[in-house]
Amino acid sequence: MRPGGVTIHGLDGIPEVVPGDDLAGFILEAADRGEVGLRDGDVVVVTHKVVAKAEGRIVDLRSIEPSAVASQFASEWSKDARQVDLVLREARRIVRMTRGILIAETRHGFVCANAGVDASNVPGEGMVCLLPEDPDRSAQQLREEIARRRNVDVAVVVSDTFGRPWRLGLVNVAIGVAGMDPIADYRGETDPSGYTLAITRMAVADELAGAAELVMGKVDKRPVAIVRGYEYRPAREGGSSGRDLLMDPAMDLFR
Amino acid sequence: MRPGGVTIHGLDGIPEVVPGDDLAGFILEAADRGEVGLRDGDVVVVTHKVVAKAEGRIVDLRSIEPSAVASQFASEWSKDARQVDLVLREARRIVRMTRGILIAETRHGFVCANAGVDASNVPGEGMVCLLPEDPDRSAQQLREEIARRRNVDVAVVVSDTFGRPWRLGLVNVAIGVAGMDPIADYRGETDPSGYTLAITRMAVADELAGAAELVMGKVDKRPVAIVRGYEYRPAREGGSSGRDLLMDPAMDLFR
Repeated sequence: MRPGGVTIHGLDGIPEVVPGDDLAGFILEAADRGEVGLRDGDVVVVTHKVVAKAEGRIVDLRSIEPSAVASQFASEWSKDARQVDLVLREARRIVRMTRGILIAETRHGFVCANAGVDASNVPGEGMVCLLPEDPDRSAQQLREEIARRRNVDVAVVVSDTFGRPWRLGLVNVAIGVAGMDPIADYRGETDPSGYTLAITRMAVADELAGAAELVMGKVDKRPVAIVRGYEYRPAREGGSSGRDLLMDPAMDLFR
Repeated sequence: MRPGGVTIHGLDGIPEVVPGDDLAGFILEAADRGEVGLRDGDVVVVTHKVVAKAEGRIVDLRSIEPSAVASQFASEWSKDARQVDLVLREARRIVRMTRGILIAETRHGFVCANAGVDASNVPGEGMVCLLPEDPDRSAQQLREEIARRRNVDVAVVVSDTFGRPWRLGLVNVAIGVAGMDPIADYRGETDPSGYTLAITRMAVADELAGAAELVMGKVDKRPVAIVRGYEYRPAREGGSSGRDLLMDPAMDLFR
């Protein structure tokens, strides 16, 4: 931690994003307007929703012809069969499909409700948003664009809102990461009592995503936050990735 | 969010806590010394470890006579049988007990590794720390002591470090809460696109705990952080609780 602590600024005034928009430009303008700017070492947390919109990952449900299984589940639980079908298409594994709830593993490996298919904060009747195709690439592109235009070295986290087993309520987590190690690995370090930490790896990119959510809100149109003063560890050799936050299936007791 | 964003200050200089210590006093002194102070509306995030130490929730493993099942599991996985036994005593339900890993539901209802029994940051060979008996009560007592001595109205979150299914790495979450609603409930609100949010409840106390971890670290002896500028919702009528963050077992797809 640097002197003065860690500060989280939500950026106001980012317009509704449409496919092809210059999201990096929107972020830089909003950061200037909010007198926050961008500095070396900042973490720019961006909701996947604006990233996906800029990348054109919007689907018109009218284009979907639902499968029999989607129609069956939808009619049983009063859901939109086309949206259920889209979830099944986005999934590579269904973890739970019961009581109207669909929890799926996305092709990236994230386990979340509806494989990330979501209708909130998407303008237009029947329009839904998918996850970015490659959230790490999205994060890296934003990081490079920001470096190119302003000559600042920032980390970028692309966030989404996930539920968790056993705990009520959703939290923001990281699905794409660039410019930092999403894990702070304390294994082998010694705590003040002389105890060697054997297993402690902190998912700091998830904590950054959650911290950013505190200033974003869900109805406030504030999809970007700047976290300043957090001393992240640099990206690992060979590149860090949001997928570093995925449990190895062989180690996963809840698969 | 208030103007200036949300700031997280880690408090330096909190001494090693022993049973009977005045933790509220330590927090107030450290906040003064760090020129942070405490203001109305702050959230004081405290690791459960210092709370548990102040409350005397330390066990000397030499006092434990392990059961047969604990000895069996410990010998198979090179663990301390006495510590395994203590975990089983602290649990009201075993969720997984395999590969040397013990995931249990505590008597409070939290599902976590080792039912919260932990040897890190506990001085003394063979000494381990339990969770506070009632983390909400601990939070409420700190809140009241701070109000009594300084006439400020703060929320208090008692945090612990939990793993999650499917995701690698640990994050801090809230196990005790006082003075705020740990959930921001958006159900029924309308997003900027006119979509009514049907299920969105954000576990903001968990996000606050995770945000605080960013300034705490695991080896830095910084067990308290002040989150300033986050506009939490007041505690609900009848009292808010860290248990509000527990999934109703009847709704839990992963029980």
